Amino acid sequence: MSVEIGRLPAATVLVCVTCKSAEGQVGAALYEALGARLADKAVALRPVECLSVCKRPCTVALAAPGKWTYVVGDLSREAHVEDIVTAARRYAAAPDGLVPWRERPLPFRRGVVSRTPPLVPALSE
Amino acid sequence: MSVEIGRLPAATVLVCVTCKSAEGQVGAALYEALGARLADKAVALRPVECLSVCKRPCTVALAAPGKWTYVVGDLSREAHVEDIVTAARRYAAAPDGLVPWRERPLPFRRGVVSRTPPLVPALSE
Repeated sequence: MSVEIGRLPAATVLVCVTCKSAEGQVGAALYEALGARLADKAVALRPVECLSVCKRPCTVALAAPGKWTYVVGDLSREAHVEDIVTAARRYAAAPDGLVPWRERPLPFRRGVVSRTPPLVPALSE
Repeated sequence: MSVEIGRLPAATVLVCVTCKSAEGQVGAALYEALGARLADKAVALRPVECLSVCKRPCTVALAAPGKWTYVVGDLSREAHVEDIVTAARRYAAAPDGLVPWRERPLPFRRGVVSRTPPLVPALSE
């Protein structure tokens, strides 16, 4: 198995657009709201069909080559857009994706569903 | 951000070795048991300090370059070593990491904590 990874953003925010709640298609709504806030070379935004965390909508993941991937649930368009933007920028600035606990917005401390390490650490540039 | 990924196994089983239960260090015990069963070029085994799924020990992840990453909890050394080996081999054989539902061992249907897509799909070889 081989993969060539070129230059990718220092953070990609993966948003589960299939997340639903009693209020409807909340994942797609969150994705739209983030699109209006994230226009940043360091942070990419990408919709995903199901992150398999269906009991804790909305769910997003932060990922980048060579970094830990974080999956975070219990997020909403109404309450958490700015927290997600802040978390994504701090993640982008962290070479390994590990943002110090105190620098994480509260929903990114309470809502962590899982984290997974990079298979290959990032190279220093 | 750039990462060069060379040849990595078609599946890496990441085992949370900090998982604990009332029975003690169950994650480390599962890791040891898997080490005795997985001696396979296609499947690598790697310990991880915390996958952040502390309420559902033991937890493992299946990952490979260009594939979806799956995090699965509620696994034990006593009941699930063969299921993990089977799941890892089927994951290794799946180009995108998406194993058809019916081919997944039961604990890998019921225990899914999250899944995240590859940032870059695998290249065909």
